[in-house]
Amino acid sequence: MPVRKILVIGIGAGNPDHLTVQAVKALQTVDVYFVLDKGSVKQELVDLRASILAEHVTRPYRWVEGRDPERDRNPADYKATIDAWRRDRADVVRGLLAELGEDEVGAFLVWGDPSLYDSTLAILDDLLARGESFEVEVIPGVTSVAALTAGHRVSLNQVGKPVQITTGRRLAAGWPSGVDDVAVMLDATYSFEGVDPDTWIYWGAYLGMPDEILVSGRVGDVAARIREVRDEARARKGWIMDTYLLRRS
Amino acid sequence: MPVRKILVIGIGAGNPDHLTVQAVKALQTVDVYFVLDKGSVKQELVDLRASILAEHVTRPYRWVEGRDPERDRNPADYKATIDAWRRDRADVVRGLLAELGEDEVGAFLVWGDPSLYDSTLAILDDLLARGESFEVEVIPGVTSVAALTAGHRVSLNQVGKPVQITTGRRLAAGWPSGVDDVAVMLDATYSFEGVDPDTWIYWGAYLGMPDEILVSGRVGDVAARIREVRDEARARKGWIMDTYLLRRS
Ligand SMILES: C[S@@+](CC[C@H](N)C(=O)[O-])C[C@H]1O[C@@H](n2cnc3c(N)ncnc32)[C@H](O)[C@@H]1O
Ligand SMILES: C[S@@+](CC[C@H](N)C(=O)[O-])C[C@H]1O[C@@H](n2cnc3c(N)ncnc32)[C@H](O)[C@@H]1O
Repeated sequence: MPVRKILVIGIGAGNPDHLTVQAVKALQTVDVYFVLDKGSVKQELVDLRASILAEHVTRPYRWVEGRDPERDRNPADYKATIDAWRRDRADVVRGLLAELGEDEVGAFLVWGDPSLYDSTLAILDDLLARGESFEVEVIPGVTSVAALTAGHRVSLNQVGKPVQITTGRRLAAGWPSGVDDVAVMLDATYSFEGVDPDTWIYWGAYLGMPDEILVSGRVGDVAARIREVRDEARARKGWIMDTYLLRRS
Repeated sequence: MPVRKILVIGIGAGNPDHLTVQAVKALQTVDVYFVLDKGSVKQELVDLRASILAEHVTRPYRWVEGRDPERDRNPADYKATIDAWRRDRADVVRGLLAELGEDEVGAFLVWGDPSLYDSTLAILDDLLARGESFEVEVIPGVTSVAALTAGHRVSLNQVGKPVQITTGRRLAAGWPSGVDDVAVMLDATYSFEGVDPDTWIYWGAYLGMPDEILVSGRVGDVAARIREVRDEARARKGWIMDTYLLRRS
């Protein structure tokens, strides 16, 4: 029986050269690329994907876009809202996959690594549970957390110690227990302003991209500057992606 | 004034094709590779580095090895032992760096990503603090955690939730508070055997390598099999590297 194959390819976090040799080789096998379009704001990110293909792919391919359903950014019920949004998104993706012939290879190009705060794998699991049939292969990529620590030339963990990766929303609810090192993603509300001012912060925006910005220091000393730099950059470019590591010693 | 440059290059976690395009380009600029040799047990890992260079480097280079000082794997005082070991290691590395001429580029090829449970950056910081002078650039890589989740085709985090990365030693002291998802590295003592048997485990050894082994399931169902598979593989190969993700839902 012919099996459709879906590659979920981590493309790294902003620098097109974050792409791995494994990903480059995989691109040479792809018949159809699937894209969930988030609208014009992040056009730069869509362009980055296109430029990766232009640089590394010589064989013919198709490019199928779907509209990513709107998502409430500040829902009353976070889990239920996310669930409904994922269901809608699964319907869109089912439509995309219908474009894939038997024995063809499809691919999602996923920002960073597919395992970190990305729903592609969950969507594909939903579709498999609804009776769609295809094989999934995941190709790991460089995360934005690794891009952040590389930019600052620091370790993610202290020697022998644990580190937590969490969201701005979670950090806003309080410093996580049991860890002195916390990497924060998806923070739209400057949650770092609420932590102990003696905490060290390594902050980065547009990591790996030409506009990369890095700021580090004692939270008490640099929090205001980060807010300012962040607001200015977001206003100028129309969007921002930033991540940071908080460290207590 | 001429400045020596040291690249700290993440080479991924076992598959030579985890190498990024950025790393491949960086290799073309390196005059001297520094290697801390851990003895014959992990010869396979030293060989992997050599094969990466053979595949991607065409310019001439030098290769300088130092002997990684022995480390007590079960010290009474973990922190003090690690500190002493790092001091010794810094002395060895200073000797290595002496091989680097002014204006030359040196490189450390680091397993996985340089930010995760690796001491290269800390050693270089120690040397800078002792008055050595060089520039450091870090090139991020695919971590063994990303290789693990890719192998199992699972997310590292649950939707909107935090994840902790920790060591086997820490997990043995109890389930970390505030998280339902825990990635565990550096576990020599089967610490997963101590968690709630209803926890799900995604375990992987030799990730990305030809001998990759993956086992997943309810801890209560698969823990004994993982111990067996792990002991057998380690006896056969003389070494093992394994990582796992624990998930409570
Ligand atoms: C939906 S998550 C996807 C993460 C991605 N899968 C990864 O491995 O990095 C998006 C978040 O990742 C972080 N992020 C991704 N790329 C980034 C970049 N180039 N610079 C700064 N932060 C980035 C931001 O915190 C952003 O809110
Ligand atoms: C000293 S740490 C280095 C981690 C590395 N810097 C990274 O980013 O993955 C070594 C630990 O990483 C994990 N590890 C590294 N490579 C691995 C592989 N190929 N398969 C399984 N585990 C691996 C194991 O838990 C091992 O004990």
